Amino acid sequence: MQGDLSARYHGRHRREVPAPDPELTAVGPGTPCGEYLRAAWQPVCLSSQLGELPLAIRILGEDLVAFRDGAGGIGVLHRHCSHRGASLEFGRIMPRGISCCYHGWHYDLDGTILATPAEPPTSRIRETLRHGAYPAVEKHGLVFAWLGDPAAVPPPPVLDVEDEPGVTLAPFLLEIPCNWLQVYENSQDPVHVVWLHARNAGAHFDESNAADQELDFAPTPLGMMNVQTRRWGGMVWTRTVECILPNLNQTGAIWEDAAAEKAFQRVGMTRWVVPVDDTASLQIGWRHLGAHLDPNGKDRPAEIGLGRIDFEGQDASATYADRQRRPGDYDAQVSQRPVAVHALEHLAGSDRGVAMLRRMLRRAVRAEAKPVAAAGGVLATFCQDTVTGLPPAADDRALLRAHGAAVARAVLESAGLPREARRAAISAAARGTSLPNEETSA
Amino acid sequence: MQGDLSARYHGRHRREVPAPDPELTAVGPGTPCGEYLRAAWQPVCLSSQLGELPLAIRILGEDLVAFRDGAGGIGVLHRHCSHRGASLEFGRIMPRGISCCYHGWHYDLDGTILATPAEPPTSRIRETLRHGAYPAVEKHGLVFAWLGDPAAVPPPPVLDVEDEPGVTLAPFLLEIPCNWLQVYENSQDPVHVVWLHARNAGAHFDESNAADQELDFAPTPLGMMNVQTRRWGGMVWTRTVECILPNLNQTGAIWEDAAAEKAFQRVGMTRWVVPVDDTASLQIGWRHLGAHLDPNGKDRPAEIGLGRIDFEGQDASATYADRQRRPGDYDAQVSQRPVAVHALEHLAGSDRGVAMLRRMLRRAVRAEAKPVAAAGGVLATFCQDTVTGLPPAADDRALLRAHGAAVARAVLESAGLPREARRAAISAAARGTSLPNEETSA
Amino acid sequence: MQGDLSARYHGRHRREVPAPDPELTAVGPGTPCGEYLRAAWQPVCLSSQLGELPLAIRILGEDLVAFRDGAGGIGVLHRHCSHRGASLEFGRIMPRGISCCYHGWHYDLDGTILATPAEPPTSRIRETLRHGAYPAVEKHGLVFAWLGDPAAVPPPPVLDVEDEPGVTLAPFLLEIPCNWLQVYENSQDPVHVVWLHARNAGAHFDESNAADQELDFAPTPLGMMNVQTRRWGGMVWTRTVECILPNLNQTGAIWEDAAAEKAFQRVGMTRWVVPVDDTASLQIGWRHLGAHLDPNGKDRPAEIGLGRIDFEGQDASATYADRQRRPGDYDAQVSQRPVAVHALEHLAGSDRGVAMLRRMLRRAVRAEAKPVAAAGGVLATFCQDTVTGLPPAADDRALLRAHGAAVARAVLESAGLPREARRAAISAAARGTSLPNEETSA
Repeated sequence: MQGDLSARYHGRHRREVPAPDPELTAVGPGTPCGEYLRAAWQPVCLSSQLGELPLAIRILGEDLVAFRDGAGGIGVLHRHCSHRGASLEFGRIMPRGISCCYHGWHYDLDGTILATPAEPPTSRIRETLRHGAYPAVEKHGLVFAWLGDPAAVPPPPVLDVEDEPGVTLAPFLLEIPCNWLQVYENSQDPVHVVWLHARNAGAHFDESNAADQELDFAPTPLGMMNVQTRRWGGMVWTRTVECILPNLNQTGAIWEDAAAEKAFQRVGMTRWVVPVDDTASLQIGWRHLGAHLDPNGKDRPAEIGLGRIDFEGQDASATYADRQRRPGDYDAQVSQRPVAVHALEHLAGSDRGVAMLRRMLRRAVRAEAKPVAAAGGVLATFCQDTVTGLPPAADDRALLRAHGAAVARAVLESAGLPREARRAAISAAARGTSLPNEETSA
Repeated sequence: MQGDLSARYHGRHRREVPAPDPELTAVGPGTPCGEYLRAAWQPVCLSSQLGELPLAIRILGEDLVAFRDGAGGIGVLHRHCSHRGASLEFGRIMPRGISCCYHGWHYDLDGTILATPAEPPTSRIRETLRHGAYPAVEKHGLVFAWLGDPAAVPPPPVLDVEDEPGVTLAPFLLEIPCNWLQVYENSQDPVHVVWLHARNAGAHFDESNAADQELDFAPTPLGMMNVQTRRWGGMVWTRTVECILPNLNQTGAIWEDAAAEKAFQRVGMTRWVVPVDDTASLQIGWRHLGAHLDPNGKDRPAEIGLGRIDFEGQDASATYADRQRRPGDYDAQVSQRPVAVHALEHLAGSDRGVAMLRRMLRRAVRAEAKPVAAAGGVLATFCQDTVTGLPPAADDRALLRAHGAAVARAVLESAGLPREARRAAISAAARGTSLPNEETSA
Repeated sequence: MQGDLSARYHGRHRREVPAPDPELTAVGPGTPCGEYLRAAWQPVCLSSQLGELPLAIRILGEDLVAFRDGAGGIGVLHRHCSHRGASLEFGRIMPRGISCCYHGWHYDLDGTILATPAEPPTSRIRETLRHGAYPAVEKHGLVFAWLGDPAAVPPPPVLDVEDEPGVTLAPFLLEIPCNWLQVYENSQDPVHVVWLHARNAGAHFDESNAADQELDFAPTPLGMMNVQTRRWGGMVWTRTVECILPNLNQTGAIWEDAAAEKAFQRVGMTRWVVPVDDTASLQIGWRHLGAHLDPNGKDRPAEIGLGRIDFEGQDASATYADRQRRPGDYDAQVSQRPVAVHALEHLAGSDRGVAMLRRMLRRAVRAEAKPVAAAGGVLATFCQDTVTGLPPAADDRALLRAHGAAVARAVLESAGLPREARRAAISAAARGTSLPNEETSA
């Protein structure tokens, strides 16, 4: 271990740590990415967190307070009172709105000053000022706020999977101490499913996840999706996982085992990655629970909620050594540094999805684009699982690619159809593949 | 919750957080406010903290060590040894002075180097150098230090209430994790007494504190006072609360209930707000204990001391949820941010006292003024309670204003009289009011 | 305590805290001192820390991971995976090298990419890139890494005391939360042994350490040494303590009591002070254990290891009050501030060793010197204890000086001799002194 080792040991040549990529990672007021994220409704807390007392929250670098008033309305207000700056987390929830503990300034849900009890009745201060407030709505146990331009507030998005028959939505919230993007882009990185979740240290999900994937990536109207096609015994399983820009993603049934045929089985989890600030984020969304999504009874509804979810590796609750032995998404993502340094990465072929997602985000940020999701209406989404009995072909990889391409194309092209018609179209496409003849383009 | 909501929701328009107000909040060496505060003797710790071991303290951004040596003298020295910088908190208290643990450099209370035992007897280093030290005195259980110009050290102030018959002084010290000013100015904000301490979440003090106040504010020779006049049954209660610049304040008996007539009842608490640094401060002073100040036996002397005081809401010892349910001064002040942002406030009519105090402080800081309190002698102070039987008038608010003005004028004009003569003058003024005929000017 | 006290109280005149001395204290990549330290092999962890799981370490401001692979080889790699930046502390130790948990990139000990399992077999990314790695070797329970220029890696140093008969080496590692230099220079400060370790608060070592020293300081081929000569009853004890630049030091038997004659008794502790970054460091090295080094049986081998050593005052494990009562090296060093401020110090005659060490380091840093220790071969070292029966002379201090000078000269001049011949030469020199006739020059 001496002499000229410079050909082998590159530690010294590669020791500099450049700055991160603020165009996609800085989220405070006025930053390009922060403004882009504010052009979508963002979930900010669980309905169940709004009880007897106000809730201090921090979203996109802004200190806020959320509460439900006596009439059941939701307020999302600037945390510090407009009068003297005392925090409204110590405020008193009123039949209507909230009042500050210090001098009783009383705010309605929209920041209207209802009363300044220490001022004389003739005071006009209430008319000259409104407290900082953001529009807020509540849906399926999540509270959404609009931190974008108040002159053009779109209706909160409605996803086509919110009212699926036989499905209940279980809200959850997890805090992740790192930048939002390294959490979000994980969902367009299907290879980590095979490695981190299956081959590295044993299965986090069903063992079918360890099967080699044929992969494709395609734009969707609101973002992009990856197409994972696997051989599992006599079955071919095509899963599509969608990112709806700027920061929503949906994936399939958590415990899918590809044991039975199905077509267009919908979402197992809807999840937003909401920045708390540049170095912390929330994973907040719904687990979709239903008998058809969990044939083996592995869902654990009691483990879904504030700070909890019913699958492994999503927090730091295990010991450090156990996390080293069986690392999960949390460990792989958070350990990339508080803000991942893109300039040190080496993206390769298997990172096509991550690269494509960043390109789409960067283009949108630079264009000061409004997310398409802001357009309103019921949004057709593209996450699903289709499992088809299909015997192996001589060139089985080619069969998988062709099958996946056919399913993906049907998923995309059926977007305008009602649910069952869409399922039928996708089912037909899945059953129609037996020979490799074409593929979707990346 | 969609469309143009910009008239109602101002969250986005008001989301910027400007810088704080360093002219009144920055306290380190060389800052204008820091130098102004150093132009007064400052209490820095309790006598009871100086026992067997040295005490590391931080005052106005300076790291110091305080101790009582074997001869009973008090030292307040720079914390780091002049020799090699080891902290004197690990030093050895000597019959005279303190010696450093590392090489034994031995300092007298005034920084004289008494010995450098590792140097040869011929060493002259002791004569060429003095360790950083500040003059210190001890009074009624508090240790005061002078961090100002050593060329003109005034005598420590003596307040006229330090030797009241039947009163003992109980020293206390509370640490507050925020800038000093937002703690100090609370004492010229009488409205918060009605709201925070009475109406918000139930009574912190006697229920009489919830009565509407007629308010006035007036300069005193050493600062300013507010005049709070309340109707309580057949009684009219006029309390004056003084701020003696730069950072001392006095308020009346803690549990005053306005049940019995009295004139010129003196102070219940003398309290300095001493900056630790820009984002932390001490409340340090005396509770004044005496039978006449506590007729209902609510004082709890055993609860007064280091980190404790005998009334509610002065620290973070309750659970967060309980502090949310019944917030106190600590919560209202600390939650204004580490340093309150004046540019975000909206001072109104009820904030006249806060505004006046800031104006006086700012004028003094800009003038590089020496606080009047530095002048020496026994200082006449102006905090008191006077309760007078007085039936309600048709225009009772006008009666209260006139009564309060008369009492306040007598409090100010009697300053030169002996204690009992002063009381008599104020009593006479209080009894002489029955018709509203004039008012003090704000 | 009033009037013009400016002649006595210098607190205000001396309150500014200048910047530290980055030329000797800043250690990150590219800093002059950091590069100088990288020109020597540095111990980075204990062999015993490399077990089932990878070890996250931070050395000289660089985040690294160390591990032992299935074949027993040691890897010291950049902590963040070259692919996507996930930390290799969550990696999987392989029969050869380590693989990342996230996508399985597999690295050999020298950073060669052995596999990128998610890429197609045709991928050439493995050939275009090497992961950051540093050469590493293991010796006597310590892992050494080379963070310097890989084009000229010297052999790891071999010290002449590594194979002493009857001596075993017990590795230890202590974390110290302050800059490296204030820990390192302590070893050329023999006066603190008398004061901190003996007279301040009772004996940390044998009471003979409290005896007055005659001191000298001399260059050694690789650094410098101090020469401490004490009278202890009928004995004269000459201890030499060496610093081998840049950051190694050796001291004598921990429990030496100067009770019996001996010549050239070798080292009790070999210790590197390795910067973690600018404000934290490791003390890492070996305790040398042997019957002749510990005649009174005071060594406690079970107390030597990770975070532990068998003598007092080396960590913060005692209560704060107990540390104040009996401070140790840890307290004296750490309390100098995170980085000691040289501009506030007042070095005196007894600090000749510290001043000389800093001069040598500064000269070497400015010259961009390679430490001599990097030259290879077995390094003669100069730490030893010699105890000689010698009755007090009329001018006993002069006798001690002469004796110490003679022993020190023999220690230096015998460097080229085999161990026993060297001992004989030093013994002869020690026995030949009875009259003061000459001295070494400082």
